[in-house]
Amino acid sequence: MSTVTIVEEQHATGDVRSIYEEIRNTMKLPFVPNLFKVMAHNPAYLRASWERVKAIMGQGVLDRRTKEMVAVAVSAANGCDYCVSAHTAALKSMGCGDAEIIELMAVVDLFSGFNKLLEGLLVASDIGVAARR
Amino acid sequence: MSTVTIVEEQHATGDVRSIYEEIRNTMKLPFVPNLFKVMAHNPAYLRASWERVKAIMGQGVLDRRTKEMVAVAVSAANGCDYCVSAHTAALKSMGCGDAEIIELMAVVDLFSGFNKLLEGLLVASDIGVAARR
Amino acid sequence: MSTVTIVEEQHATGDVRSIYEEIRNTMKLPFVPNLFKVMAHNPAYLRASWERVKAIMGQGVLDRRTKEMVAVAVSAANGCDYCVSAHTAALKSMGCGDAEIIELMAVVDLFSGFNKLLEGLLVASDIGVAARR
Amino acid sequence: MSTVTIVEEQHATGDVRSIYEEIRNTMKLPFVPNLFKVMAHNPAYLRASWERVKAIMGQGVLDRRTKEMVAVAVSAANGCDYCVSAHTAALKSMGCGDAEIIELMAVVDLFSGFNKLLEGLLVASDIGVAARR
Amino acid sequence: MSTVTIVEEQHATGDVRSIYEEIRNTMKLPFVPNLFKVMAHNPAYLRASWERVKAIMGQGVLDRRTKEMVAVAVSAANGCDYCVSAHTAALKSMGCGDAEIIELMAVVDLFSGFNKLLEGLLVASDIGVAARR
Amino acid sequence: MSTVTIVEEQHATGDVRSIYEEIRNTMKLPFVPNLFKVMAHNPAYLRASWERVKAIMGQGVLDRRTKEMVAVAVSAANGCDYCVSAHTAALKSMGCGDAEIIELMAVVDLFSGFNKLLEGLLVASDIGVAARR
Repeated sequence: MSTVTIVEEQHATGDVRSIYEEIRNTMKLPFVPNLFKVMAHNPAYLRASWERVKAIMGQGVLDRRTKEMVAVAVSAANGCDYCVSAHTAALKSMGCGDAEIIELMAVVDLFSGFNKLLEGLLVASDIGVAARR
Repeated sequence: MSTVTIVEEQHATGDVRSIYEEIRNTMKLPFVPNLFKVMAHNPAYLRASWERVKAIMGQGVLDRRTKEMVAVAVSAANGCDYCVSAHTAALKSMGCGDAEIIELMAVVDLFSGFNKLLEGLLVASDIGVAARR
Repeated sequence: MSTVTIVEEQHATGDVRSIYEEIRNTMKLPFVPNLFKVMAHNPAYLRASWERVKAIMGQGVLDRRTKEMVAVAVSAANGCDYCVSAHTAALKSMGCGDAEIIELMAVVDLFSGFNKLLEGLLVASDIGVAARR
Repeated sequence: MSTVTIVEEQHATGDVRSIYEEIRNTMKLPFVPNLFKVMAHNPAYLRASWERVKAIMGQGVLDRRTKEMVAVAVSAANGCDYCVSAHTAALKSMGCGDAEIIELMAVVDLFSGFNKLLEGLLVASDIGVAARR
Repeated sequence: MSTVTIVEEQHATGDVRSIYEEIRNTMKLPFVPNLFKVMAHNPAYLRASWERVKAIMGQGVLDRRTKEMVAVAVSAANGCDYCVSAHTAALKSMGCGDAEIIELMAVVDLFSGFNKLLEGLLVASDIGVAARR
Repeated sequence: MSTVTIVEEQHATGDVRSIYEEIRNTMKLPFVPNLFKVMAHNPAYLRASWERVKAIMGQGVLDRRTKEMVAVAVSAANGCDYCVSAHTAALKSMGCGDAEIIELMAVVDLFSGFNKLLEGLLVASDIGVAARR
């Protein structure tokens, strides 16, 4: 379900069709995820978003496993079931077990608590890059 | 500044005093961060929180650098200047440069956008652990 | 489902009954949405909320379509399925198609990403109303 | 500073002027808070918002102190310095000391952490009103 | 459902087993909530979290009912169905009825709106602890 | 200030230099905003992000003014001072006055409140696209 229709693979033509094919090949999936199929109503948006996924998640100075952990952590903080599910699966496919996922989430738990505590007390930065001691 | 007073190190006694000393030693800091100095109005809360910091951020199945990256990413998503500042400094002290920090934040940017897009369209999970295809 | 009972239309009396009728008439609905039926346990809260809905969403300097777009965008950012569903339907009833809704959500995606990036790097404002260049 | 001008008290006329006076009297303040002075560009919005403040924060089934605690806790969770500052001051004027404020914030810390942990693991409700055990 | 397995009560051994028993006894529940059963993959995290729950939610300067109200309010602001469900049930078991829960949520509604309004206009604090009038 | 250095215009070379020039020309600004100057540590990320800004904010089915309103509303909901400041200035440059900005923010206020109320009561959708009446 979604509030808009999705552009099904069999109905994709032109640029959308070729991006869909590239997504399936790059992500090694037998289907195109809904995330991209809703974007396809606006091919320029789909194209620019897919290019950006490749630029950010592709080869870089951080390894892919770290990036997938950050993806799950951020999606937990922002409350997105879809991305939590997709990127936890990605972590598992890289050999991450329950112990690693729980330790990752313990860090999310710890700092989400401290984040709100510090906001609720208006505590000034006294440590780190922006410290004003 | 903070909405409550902080329990200064020279005024700390008993359990608070010994936790303060442990914090300075463990974190290798010349002072106790405000985060803990506000908690000290409730020594049981300070004690339990510090024990939990050690349990989560100490030795485990994930390396400390990955945990610090997750700390910064989560604090960015939750909007906490204090923790962003403190844990970016921790990353830098481990040798992380601007290129790594920007790549980390690019992942936060990418998924924060997708998180809200998927919510705004009520897109059903079709990939990963919770997929309902 | 909800954690409290809802005040059903057939059980509404007095002020709640007349507000319910006004809601159905103004919103041109055959029933009163659950949003208002939970509020009805506190008639003063229901009354004040409904008056405020009319003051904000009624005639003003912005057109209704723009306001409905903002309603969907804000509800996406805040993570509220109920309001996303209700106000996307409102947009569709005004003739908005999938292309418009996707473009609206692309803007939500773009800025939600940038919002968290800027927070995660503590970037100072250098442009606009609050610039400190 | 704010992105819009504020309607100063000496420039307020008609309905805005009388609401301003009511705000000062009800809140026992020598000035009208900026929150209301920005709203005054739209007198209907100001009127409806002020009426709603009175309906929600006035006499009811919960005592005022509990409501002020909830106001601070929610503002911490949502990240609003203005409301944290204003309602912590309200708590202090009711005799709340640092120990109470820290205990309040400890609860915010605890649950903000658990909230994100549960989201990040997609844990199903098994306890309470919506349990699906 | 959850993205990780849960450590079932019949499979718990050693420290996890004794914490589980303490949780059931303290919370007066016939089973251990999933919140703790996912944590059990990391016994040190489970132990430290449970100790912290007791330190924060146990006897202190605020009464338990106020703390449960804050738990529900914060979980609403952070968007956590699990905690909203669990702690609304706790409130009901203490005699809280629909009228109290709606009044509690009206405060959440009021300040969540004002929180975002003040952010969206960058209104400076002019009242309370951090006022800069 | 920011936690990373920014790539100053006079130090930009190659692809970064030409993107900077395009940004200044397209946005009709005498300088490149910090948002892009932090990204420049990763030229592929800068390139992909700028292309996406053009694809989303450029010509489409929604007018630019509506998109700028959504940008401000989303940035208010997500708590980003930088984007609130930048895009409120954009609205003003298009002729938007205080009355329009306040009405926009009134909609943000209204729905941010309702968003959290509905979450805090776990109210089921009964209206709109995802209704389950």
